[in-house]
Parts: sequence; C-alpha cells; structure tokens
Amino acid sequence: MGSKRARGFPKPTLNRLPLYLRVLSELERKKIAFVSSRQLAELVGTNSAQVRKDLSFLGELGVRGLGYEVTHLKLEISRFLGLEKSKQVVVVGVGRLGSALIGYEGFKKKGFCIIGAFDIDEKKIGQVFSGIEVQPLDELKKFVSRQGTIDIGIIAVPASSAQIAGELLLEAGVKSILNFAPAPLDLNNKIPIRHVDLSVEMQILSYYLSRGKRGKSYGG
Amino acid sequence: MGSKRARGFPKPTLNRLPLYLRVLSELERKKIAFVSSRQLAELVGTNSAQVRKDLSFLGELGVRGLGYEVTHLKLEISRFLGLEKSKQVVVVGVGRLGSALIGYEGFKKKGFCIIGAFDIDEKKIGQVFSGIEVQPLDELKKFVSRQGTIDIGIIAVPASSAQIAGELLLEAGVKSILNFAPAPLDLNNKIPIRHVDLSVEMQILSYYLSRGKRGKSYGG
Repeated sequence: MGSKRARGFPKPTLNRLPLYLRVLSELERKKIAFVSSRQLAELVGTNSAQVRKDLSFLGELGVRGLGYEVTHLKLEISRFLGLEKSKQVVVVGVGRLGSALIGYEGFKKKGFCIIGAFDIDEKKIGQVFSGIEVQPLDELKKFVSRQGTIDIGIIAVPASSAQIAGELLLEAGVKSILNFAPAPLDLNNKIPIRHVDLSVEMQILSYYLSRGKRGKSYGG
Repeated sequence: MGSKRARGFPKPTLNRLPLYLRVLSELERKKIAFVSSRQLAELVGTNSAQVRKDLSFLGELGVRGLGYEVTHLKLEISRFLGLEKSKQVVVVGVGRLGSALIGYEGFKKKGFCIIGAFDIDEKKIGQVFSGIEVQPLDELKKFVSRQGTIDIGIIAVPASSAQIAGELLLEAGVKSILNFAPAPLDLNNKIPIRHVDLSVEMQILSYYLSRGKRGKSYGG
C-alpha cells in the first residue's frame, strides 16, 4: 500500500474514476439523487470499502446516512480529472478506425473535440469526415504550433506504423497519446500514453461464456 | 471482501486478467522468461500483493525466488478466460465504427472471428468489408441458428438504436454482447453484456494533462 501511495495517486483508483463517472451519469438520467458506496460498488464492480477509499482521495464527499449526492459527486470527479476544460484532439491515420473515431458520438459529448486529422495516403488528403478535412501528415507539426495546444493525439494507423506515428506526435508537441493500434509504443515516458485494446472486453465476455454464467453478476 | 468472494470470482480481478495477458505477451516478445509480482504490478498498475492474490485464484503458479514463468502464466490465464477456443462473432451496424471493427487486426489474432455483419440500411447490404458481406438485419436469427453458436454480438449502431439491436441479438440466440454504442443497454441480465466506452482512456489522459505529470507513473 505504502509504495502505491508514495508515487502519488493510486493508478487502480484513477482507472476506476471514469467508471464511476459513467455510472453516475446513468443514475442522473434515472433521476436518482443519492447513491450509497455499496450501490456504487455493485455498479462499478468492486467492493464498498474500495469505493469509500477511492472517493476519499477527492475530499469529504459522503453525506452520513444518505451516501453520495449523485450530481455533486459527478462534478467533483469531473473536476478532479480535469474534464471541465474541453480537450483538443488530433487523429493520425484516417482508415476505417480513424474515420470512425472522428465520427464517434461519445467524444464530443464528453468534451473531447477532434479538430485535425492526418494521413500519409494521398487519396485520403482533402477528404472530409464528420466535418474534418484530412491533411498530409507533413503538416502535423505546423498545425500543432498554429493551434497552440493539442492535448491528445490519437494513433489509428496499422500496428506496424504505430511507433513512427507516436514519434511524430511527440515531436510535433502533442501533449499525450491515445494508441488504438494493437502494438506497443515507447516514447521514453516523455508524455502520457494510454492504449485502447478493443479485445479486452471480449476476453472478459469469454470468461462468462466459458463458465456459462447467468444472473446479476455481469458487468463492471 | 467476503461479499465480493461470495458471488464467485471477484470482478476487479477478472477485469485485470486481460491486462496481465497483454503485459505477458509484451514480455514474451522481449524474450523475458520470468517476471516477479512486483514487476507485474508495475506494468499493470496495481500493487504486488494484489497481483499475488489475483493469480492465486488460478492455482499455484509462482516459482519461489523466480516469480512467474511468463509463457506458462499467459497460457494459464488464457485457459482460465476460455480463450483456447476461438469465438464466433457477429456485428450489428456496419457504419464507420462497425466496418472498422470488422477489419480490426487485434481481434482475429486473439481468436475472435467476425463471421457475420448485419445492417438495416439497404445501401449497405451486399457490400463486403474485410471479406464479410453485409446481410439484412432480418436475416440475423436465421444466420445464428444456421451457425449453431454465435458467442458474441457486437453492437455498433447509433446510441438511439442500441437497445433494439440488443433485443434482436438476444432473441436470435447470441450468447453475449459487446456494446460500442454510447448508450445503456438493459436485457434483464439474460446474457452477459460489456460496454466499451472509448472516452474512458481519454478521461485518464485528461487527469495526467491537468496535473502536468511527467515520469514513469503513466500507463496501466
């Protein structure tokens, strides 16, 4: 425990905060005003002691006897994650996945605005996806300095080009990377990198399938 | 703790197993034969006590003084998740995201074979994506019974159609669902459902960006 804390905020807690957010949005939609740590634990797939510990990092948020106020807790987590400011995002690689990400409904709703798209394929340059015109990858650096700040660079190139795309994003001054290519990426820890592996959730479904599980124990 | 165990295998552990798998594949690629729980914890973003606890559910896998044998541990986790058998997958909704998922390199590599694609849009019927011909959604039920078993149905329709797509998949006899639509889905817990929210990783990047963090504490 000590070693986990010593390096700052615990990563498992950080990984759970977006899940709490999602669950709280759901509760808000259902017009539920308060939620207990036990209910949150159930919805997120952990235990209530862990929920209380996770949320204690954000301050004194629980109301004795009532639990957590849904809207307030959602706001506090958003603020903690720095989500009150919208983020500028570019996409490198405008194949099927890249163009799908440009059009993904969920991003803009959550404050992630894709404002640029880049590719090396001449046939793609000039094409417009969901209002974004594809530019040549050579233009990335100029684009980033013109914009001032690009918070997130999405890598949506084939696995074999992921490392090069990452290096170009780093060099251009993009502040963090979300890697959708099923390939490792090493930028010497100079900027934060997160990997999205679309197989992870399938592997979890595989577990349930192999056990033939039924009932309320899914999800999380 | 007790309540977490009582309902079977703990969900947080289950959620971490695919991450261990990913990390172990990486170590295998680097020809590393043994890994300690401390190293695994570092790579997965948890602590070593948790790693040992997680892996203890799979049997006695550690070798005293050496740690875990990478290839063996990978095999045991794969087997535990039921990944030794390849899975039959269909996609409902062949827009940008759906067609991107059909062509996603990572799935087949991991034993998830997309064998059918369905849409209601007449213009899409008959189009071929990565070797898969799009069929009318009306044909889903027939297709599933002809195939015998469809393990996973991927929902890649707009948010507003997610619930209907889910009901059709359930009715057709598909055994579990992976929902990419940014919308809730309620099938009375009749089959396992997992949601992929592509914003989650962006929200974690947002945390690092808002703190201006540098150094080795990224990832996980």
